[in-house]
Order: sequence, then C-alpha cells, then structure tokens
Amino acid sequence: MDRPYLRMLFRPQVKEPTLITGLPGFGNIGKIVANLLIKFSQAELFAELYSPSFPDIVIVDKGGVCRLPRYEFYAPKSGRNIIILTGDVQPPLDDIPAHYEVCGMVLDLMDEFGCKYIITIGGIPSSQPVKEVYVAATKPEIAVDYMEKGAIIYGGGRIMGASGLLLGLAKRRGMEGACILGSTMGLTADRESAFQVFKFLTKILEPMQEEV
Amino acid sequence: MDRPYLRMLFRPQVKEPTLITGLPGFGNIGKIVANLLIKFSQAELFAELYSPSFPDIVIVDKGGVCRLPRYEFYAPKSGRNIIILTGDVQPPLDDIPAHYEVCGMVLDLMDEFGCKYIITIGGIPSSQPVKEVYVAATKPEIAVDYMEKGAIIYGGGRIMGASGLLLGLAKRRGMEGACILGSTMGLTADRESAFQVFKFLTKILEPMQEEV
Amino acid sequence: MDRPYLRMLFRPQVKEPTLITGLPGFGNIGKIVANLLIKFSQAELFAELYSPSFPDIVIVDKGGVCRLPRYEFYAPKSGRNIIILTGDVQPPLDDIPAHYEVCGMVLDLMDEFGCKYIITIGGIPSSQPVKEVYVAATKPEIAVDYMEKGAIIYGGGRIMGASGLLLGLAKRRGMEGACILGSTMGLTADRESAFQVFKFLTKILEPMQEEV
Amino acid sequence: MDRPYLRMLFRPQVKEPTLITGLPGFGNIGKIVANLLIKFSQAELFAELYSPSFPDIVIVDKGGVCRLPRYEFYAPKSGRNIIILTGDVQPPLDDIPAHYEVCGMVLDLMDEFGCKYIITIGGIPSSQPVKEVYVAATKPEIAVDYMEKGAIIYGGGRIMGASGLLLGLAKRRGMEGACILGSTMGLTADRESAFQVFKFLTKILEPMQEEV
Repeated sequence: MDRPYLRMLFRPQVKEPTLITGLPGFGNIGKIVANLLIKFSQAELFAELYSPSFPDIVIVDKGGVCRLPRYEFYAPKSGRNIIILTGDVQPPLDDIPAHYEVCGMVLDLMDEFGCKYIITIGGIPSSQPVKEVYVAATKPEIAVDYMEKGAIIYGGGRIMGASGLLLGLAKRRGMEGACILGSTMGLTADRESAFQVFKFLTKILEPMQEEV
Repeated sequence: MDRPYLRMLFRPQVKEPTLITGLPGFGNIGKIVANLLIKFSQAELFAELYSPSFPDIVIVDKGGVCRLPRYEFYAPKSGRNIIILTGDVQPPLDDIPAHYEVCGMVLDLMDEFGCKYIITIGGIPSSQPVKEVYVAATKPEIAVDYMEKGAIIYGGGRIMGASGLLLGLAKRRGMEGACILGSTMGLTADRESAFQVFKFLTKILEPMQEEV
Repeated sequence: MDRPYLRMLFRPQVKEPTLITGLPGFGNIGKIVANLLIKFSQAELFAELYSPSFPDIVIVDKGGVCRLPRYEFYAPKSGRNIIILTGDVQPPLDDIPAHYEVCGMVLDLMDEFGCKYIITIGGIPSSQPVKEVYVAATKPEIAVDYMEKGAIIYGGGRIMGASGLLLGLAKRRGMEGACILGSTMGLTADRESAFQVFKFLTKILEPMQEEV
Repeated sequence: MDRPYLRMLFRPQVKEPTLITGLPGFGNIGKIVANLLIKFSQAELFAELYSPSFPDIVIVDKGGVCRLPRYEFYAPKSGRNIIILTGDVQPPLDDIPAHYEVCGMVLDLMDEFGCKYIITIGGIPSSQPVKEVYVAATKPEIAVDYMEKGAIIYGGGRIMGASGLLLGLAKRRGMEGACILGSTMGLTADRESAFQVFKFLTKILEPMQEEV
C-alpha cells in the first residue's frame, strides 16, 4: 500500500446526500457525535479508507482481533439522506500533504454520490465550563442561518485539522456547508459538549430532510 | 490538491515590476509592511497560491466565513510598478522541499511578468530595544547602495525562512535584489520596527519608480 | 539508493513457511526472541533489506568494520519450516509511509515463498513486575487457540510499530497470524520477559511443524 | 529546484582521486579539518551541490552578499591527487531519504572521476578531555593499518550523519575507505581535536600519494 486505498462494501441508496464528518480530535467531540448519529439513524458501514499516512499501528478489538486503522463511511438503511464519516485516527500533524490527499479522496467519493453539502463536527478549546456551539461556514447566509438556530459565529480565528480542511477543500470545489464546533475545557472525551452539538445538529438536519 | 496551485483573478498592468514580499515571521514585520504597502498603494488582489504543504487549517473571517490558507499577490491600480506578495502562513519548518517548491512557483510567476528585482522583508531577533534596519543583497553594489540610504549591512550571518530563500533562489535565476530586515525584541507583532522598515522601503522605492 | 532494496544471498529450502519477526522495540523483546530463535534453530542469513528511510548511520562491528543498517532474513539449515526476520533498526516514527513501504516489501518476499502465516513478536509497557505473554490475532480462532496455550488476550487496545503494522498488512493480503507481546516495565533490554515469550513461541511452533 | 542540483565550475585534473569529506557536525571537526586541508593543499572550488532538502536559509558573507547553502567540492591546483568535500550544512535530521539522495549524488560524481577510496572526517562525543583519534573502515585491513598508524579502532558502535552514511553507501558500491573521528567534549567548535585529526590524516595521505 503506497497510496490511500478505498474499499467499497456496498453502494448505499443515497442521492445528493449531506456529508457529516466526525473524526477524532479535541475533546473527541467529532467522533462522539458521529457515533451517536450512526446509532440513532441505524446507519451501516459501506466503505473503508486506508492510508499509508495513518499511524503505523493496528487497532485490536475486545476479542483480540486486529485490523489496520481506517476512515469509515456509513449510510442509514432508510430515512435520512446522509453519509456519515468517522474513523480511528487522523493523519499525523507532521505530514500535511498526506492530510490534503486523504481529504481529497473523501471529497472525490462524495462527488460520485452528487453530494453538495458538508457539515464537519469538531471541538475547540475553552477556558469556561459553559458548553457552547460555534459555527463557521462556506458563505455568510449559512453562518447566519445556523446562528439563528442557536449557534455562535466563530469569527476571526482558525480551525485546525480535518474539520477545517475538509470544509475548506469542499468550498474550493464549489460545495457549501459548515463546521460545527463544541467548546470543551479538556483533552479527554467531553460527552456533555458532544451531546450539545448532537442536539444542534439534529435541529439543522430536520428541515433539510423535510425539504428533500 | 496534490501540488501547489495558482489561481489568477485578473492580469495586472505591470511591466518588469519589482516584487516586494512580506510573509508572516519573526515580529510579523514582513506581513505588517506588506499590508501597509497594499493600503498606501491601493493595491488589488490579482492572484492566490494554495499548497498542500500549507497548514491543514481554514482561516475564518469576522463573519464566520472560512477559506483555505494561501499566499496572495497584489498590484496597485495605478502608479508604482510593483507586485506585493503576502500570505496567511509559511510552509511548516519540517517540510523544506515544500518551501523550495512554493518559492519556485512564486518566482515562475514573476518570470512571466518580466520581474528582475526582488525585495524581501523580514524580522531579525535583537536583544536591544533600538529598532534598526538591516540589509543583505544579491551583489555588493546593492548592499552598499542600501547602506548609504541608512541600512546596516547584515554581514556574516544567515537569514531563515521565506525572506532568505526567495532571495537566494531569485539570485540563482539571475535576478537581483535585497532582503530588508527589521530588528525586533519579541515574538509578538512589532509595529514600531515594521514602520521603520516601511519608511526605509519607501525611500528605496521612490527613485526606482522615477527611473521607470 | 532512492527506494528500499533487497539483496538475496541464497534461496532457502522452505515451502509455505511461517514468518516470525522480531525487530528492535520496547524492551527489545522482539529482537532478543529473534536472536534466540536464530541460535537455537541454527538459521542462516539469506537476504538483506536496505532502505533510504532507515536512520542515516552505519553500524560498526567490534573489529571496526562498518555497514549500512538493514533488515535481515534467516532460515534454518534444516528442521523447522520457518523464516526469521530481524534487523538493526525500524524506520523513524515520523516517516510512516516509509514504514508501510518497507513492511510491504517484507510481505512481497513472503508471497514469493508461499508464506500464509505470520507471527510478530514485540513488547508492551507494563507497570507490574510480573512478566505476562499477550496475544492479538487476525481472527478469533487464533486468539482463542493461543489463549488456551497460556497467553492473555490483548483486547481493546492498539499495537504500535512493525509488530502491529506487519500483522495488519498481512491480514489485508489474506494471510493469517498473531502478534505475541511480552509485558515489560522498562525501556532497557528485558531478557526475562523475552525468554517468557520465547518459551511460549516454542510451544506454538512445535505442533505447527509436526503438522507439516 | 525540486531535486538536488550539481553546478560544475571547471573539471579538475585528477585521476582515481581519494575523496576526503568534512561536513558540519559534532565539534565541527569535519569542517575544520576540510578547511585546513583546502588551505594547505591550495585547493580550488570546482563544483557546487544544491538541494531542496538543505535548510531554507541563505548564507550571508561579511559584505552582506547572500547565497543558498551548498556542498562544495575542491581539488588542489597541483600535488595531491585528492578531492575535498565540505559544505555549509547537512540535510535536516528528519528528512533521511533526502540525506541518502544527496550522498548518492556525491558518490555518482566521484564515480565519474574514478574515485575508489574515501575518507570521511567527523567528531564523536567524549566525556574525557583527552583528544583521541578513532577509526572505522570498510574492511578489517584498513582498520588495522590505521590502528598501526596511531588511531584507536571504533568498535561496536554507530556513526551518525554524513560521515557514516557516505562511507556505508560507498562500501555498498564497492569502494573502500575509512571514517576518522576526533573525540570531543563539547558541541562548540573543537580546534584542538580537529588539529589532532588533521595531523593523523596527513600521515595517512602521505604514503598514498607516494604510491601514485
């Protein structure tokens, strides 16, 4: 394996779906929200992405069975017209071109499904115990819309890692979308902040699905 | 995106222009000077350079709208025959070949405009509160000329980052030019030193433009 | 040398051999076990693997003679149908794609010999002085079999470095096998834990060879 | 510049010369010895090697004139049949494949001149103030020969950086040679140890040149 590699398990019945991404990161908020969404929408794993830039480790399950680290794509059996991306890892901080390459492959796959809207989920550090939900978007209308639904505009800053990069690359391809960030004080998993974000995400997804 | 990528917005009316570069760095002097020059010469953004070696982040403006980090090229609407390069970031310290590649693309673009002279702006650490302006050049005549206009020759040292590398690569292509360095005590933005450099730069640019 | 490079000294008489790998790592357990196995099975060096991602050093023997660092493949003159992989080094932590490439070349060579089973040996950190032997495997049956022979299932964790990656990549190619891990308290060579692992490995290898 | 690049200034009159390398490193011993040898043998610069893996800096001379960092090849106007390699820098520690590539280009150039013997000069850390000269070689005969001339055999260790890698790669190409190491206590330039090494090197070079 000298390049990222996509393994399709089956082709889900989605049409111009919304992509929702939650990868490991600050407070592990992205991954927790993705897991909640997979559970509540009864989504099934339909594709795996492997990369020689992912850490040189294996993940071992409770029964002692190992596998390479990967990104995973899920789609609900029925109902919501979404695709959920989660994973074991992110590419390491010191191999940035690898991160651009992996994010590019994710968006290539989304192109195949006609995906035009992306919501990335992440966490941002905060020194306050209050849990807030922040938003940044590809255009002002989306930022304002999310603000009216209860998020705070994350203005004048930077968003690091996959949450930011996926959205930035998607924008350059002509896609629209937003990054939803849960504030968190610690580096350990923050379930409370993740649940706030999950509730907000549900509020965002409902009218979108009704429109379809 | 697996290689640096140039996006032209329009083709500026310049002929054998002088390139002036001010990127983020020590004391943020380069970027502050570039911004002052853009403002005072009413320059417009005409090209953007993206790279998979730039940090995997997005820049978010005050309205919550995000974009990928980039280098930006500006040209004045009228008046001075210059191009100004600034940007959000520099390639990371641990990906040097990426830095050579990005600087090479900047100089390729300058070749297209017939640019033969480059002035790079940066900062150098100093333990003294006095703000001095230093110069290093591609040939002795330029170093002496700048010295006569008030700069101190920066002799027997090294210049790190884009300010040095752009000038060194430009010299290898047969271009001439200089690096102007403002001394600064701190790692935070040093507006005072940047303003000293800006005044000196104005003194350098005036006769050059009269000659044209 | 711009890519990994394999140097064959001779072609060993093995048929569908089991690969056993022990490379430098935590407690140096992998390498110590590999060396014990080479000694007790009177195995001979038959191939060397060099890589431009191995550290830029030379190894000097007691007589002052130097050579590049390498992976080494050994096969017993007679008796056990195994191949043993050991080496001076592992690729550095910050060049993960290089690690995938080197492991891929090891498995390519094993494909040539018809190898379908791999046992990787490593160490895992422990805060207890008791020396235990842990196992993770490519499928539940193997994990259970090793457990019945005395190992503890290493469940719900991650295995770092070559021990994990070789097994994960082997599994993706359809090979089966296991990783045997000796628990160790320190970063220095732990001969006691290595000997525990060696005894367990012998127990595993005996029936396999009788079956042949 | 996306690959290392060799610039020939003129073609020196050498035939099967001995290559002597002294690059920056521990105690700066290699570079000091190379500079002494260049001075005493009145050697002239005949080739420059540039690389996009060398640090992204420019070197500024006392007159304020800058140039890119490089490796430099010197040959004496007359007399000794040697080539001397020195330089401003070494490739960074975290880009090992770049180091293999640059060393490979050095040896390619030596192949053109029919060079079959290489002596690399470096420093090794020592906790003792006594200055010793150590040797490691491509074969036992050379190690013993140098030992009889006063060096201590550097047995059972590792040699890091260009001194080791150049010798190891040269050996793999069928060249012979040795690495001469001066012991030094500090990280600052150690002129005393370098002078010990220079005296020893002179003793080694004299009979070699008489044989020619």
